[in-house]
Amino acid sequence: MKGRPGPTTRIRIRELSGAVGRDRRDDLATEEPLEIRLTAPDGARRTVAITMRTPGHDFELAAGFLHGEGLAGPKEIAAIAYCTDEDLPPEARYNTVTVRLHGPIPDLPALDRHFLTSSACGVCGSASLDVLRDRCVPIPRGLLELTPELLYGLPDALRGAQGVFGKTGGLHAAGLFTAAGTLLALREDVGRHNAVDKLVGWAGLTERLPLAEHVLMVSGRASYEIMQKALAAGIAVVCAVSAPSSLAVELAREFGMTLVGFLRGERCNIYAGQERILG
Amino acid sequence: MKGRPGPTTRIRIRELSGAVGRDRRDDLATEEPLEIRLTAPDGARRTVAITMRTPGHDFELAAGFLHGEGLAGPKEIAAIAYCTDEDLPPEARYNTVTVRLHGPIPDLPALDRHFLTSSACGVCGSASLDVLRDRCVPIPRGLLELTPELLYGLPDALRGAQGVFGKTGGLHAAGLFTAAGTLLALREDVGRHNAVDKLVGWAGLTERLPLAEHVLMVSGRASYEIMQKALAAGIAVVCAVSAPSSLAVELAREFGMTLVGFLRGERCNIYAGQERILG
Repeated sequence: MKGRPGPTTRIRIRELSGAVGRDRRDDLATEEPLEIRLTAPDGARRTVAITMRTPGHDFELAAGFLHGEGLAGPKEIAAIAYCTDEDLPPEARYNTVTVRLHGPIPDLPALDRHFLTSSACGVCGSASLDVLRDRCVPIPRGLLELTPELLYGLPDALRGAQGVFGKTGGLHAAGLFTAAGTLLALREDVGRHNAVDKLVGWAGLTERLPLAEHVLMVSGRASYEIMQKALAAGIAVVCAVSAPSSLAVELAREFGMTLVGFLRGERCNIYAGQERILG
Repeated sequence: MKGRPGPTTRIRIRELSGAVGRDRRDDLATEEPLEIRLTAPDGARRTVAITMRTPGHDFELAAGFLHGEGLAGPKEIAAIAYCTDEDLPPEARYNTVTVRLHGPIPDLPALDRHFLTSSACGVCGSASLDVLRDRCVPIPRGLLELTPELLYGLPDALRGAQGVFGKTGGLHAAGLFTAAGTLLALREDVGRHNAVDKLVGWAGLTERLPLAEHVLMVSGRASYEIMQKALAAGIAVVCAVSAPSSLAVELAREFGMTLVGFLRGERCNIYAGQERILG
């Protein structure tokens, strides 16, 4: 791949239908690594993540990731730019984002130790929630009430706003809706967590955080990771087309979030925070 | 959650159908962190990963993860056990697996730096493939030839073998098939990469690696990560129900693997390694 990678990549493939094969072109979701670097006024720099993502909205992805991990909020960010190191070839330049902070680089634990608790109790789901409690506050109640009809309209609104390509199943989608069911922003990515990071990053960079009166809708399942990012953004209601995991539900109940799953057609399951759904 | 977590967790939920709600029980895919620790004969120990996974086949998950990351092959493993530290509560004990090695703990780079290349060229898809080239060999050609009919039978075989629960969409599935289309093993997990790790770990612990005459079928998409794990296991043919990413295709073409996507009904797309598919 030469130069700046786009969100899709065109290649030649072989299509088989029954016993009949033909060659044709096909568009794939581009997957390329993104390195997120922090720099501080004192000249310190540190790589904090390398994630496989679909190119596009990379600054939002960086801002959303930093916010979700509790490393830096939007107000602590002075500037975001692609890396301009002369020694990088062009394609690598667009795969490295440098986030300049107003203050020093936070004293971060190794990223793969996020789930280790500060107590001696080892890793388990409850311990993971304990760690979150140190930096996230429960979502306030009473700010948001939704009708079932509003929920039932979200999946079509999300799919309708996805590009033709995303509808083919090559990309995860995450959409942010108002309390009236209006789609504010949509982001797509090969990684579900990246789509949510891009959305939260967009909200942060446009000074919309926290999102206590908004609804997040994701195209697939709801895992712990998705719920953790939503919680950090203050999102009250998370809806998923597919199933949530046990720990996603535990997190939602612990922090006062509403979690809706299997939202398809005129039905859904409410796993947590039922008081925000009318009727 | 008390004691040893199971693969599913039963909770009470609210089901909405149209405007009608009712309370019922529901089974969720359990999601809990698993910590993988290495220990060496000299007493050294190190945590190498914490991954969110569905409990079950944890030793296979650990063995498969270590193999896929190039940290330790099955022959380098002396024993695998749950952590028996007295100071751990029971639920954390079953979330920590200790892998005792015959030799010293490998000198590993930080896990989040896997995509950094040894050259000065920064992160990009091609650089990620360069890193793989240091520890993975291309898949030999000529060992495996499959008919389209055999491919078309794989999705149903996979779904048929999934538990009722997995079929509801709560779990990713990965299946290993022989060249005759016989399902050898199936693993399910909330994480697609974990399902593949469990399968490769099973193959390693039962002395079946490399799997050059086998077919891996996954229930979702094929990403770089899945292809990288398949390559490390020597798997010649990878089939996915959904789309591959650009880097998954690039990896397959670079290392002589066959990659089939959108395998549904009597059709599929061949993205790489067409010579292994007859007709």
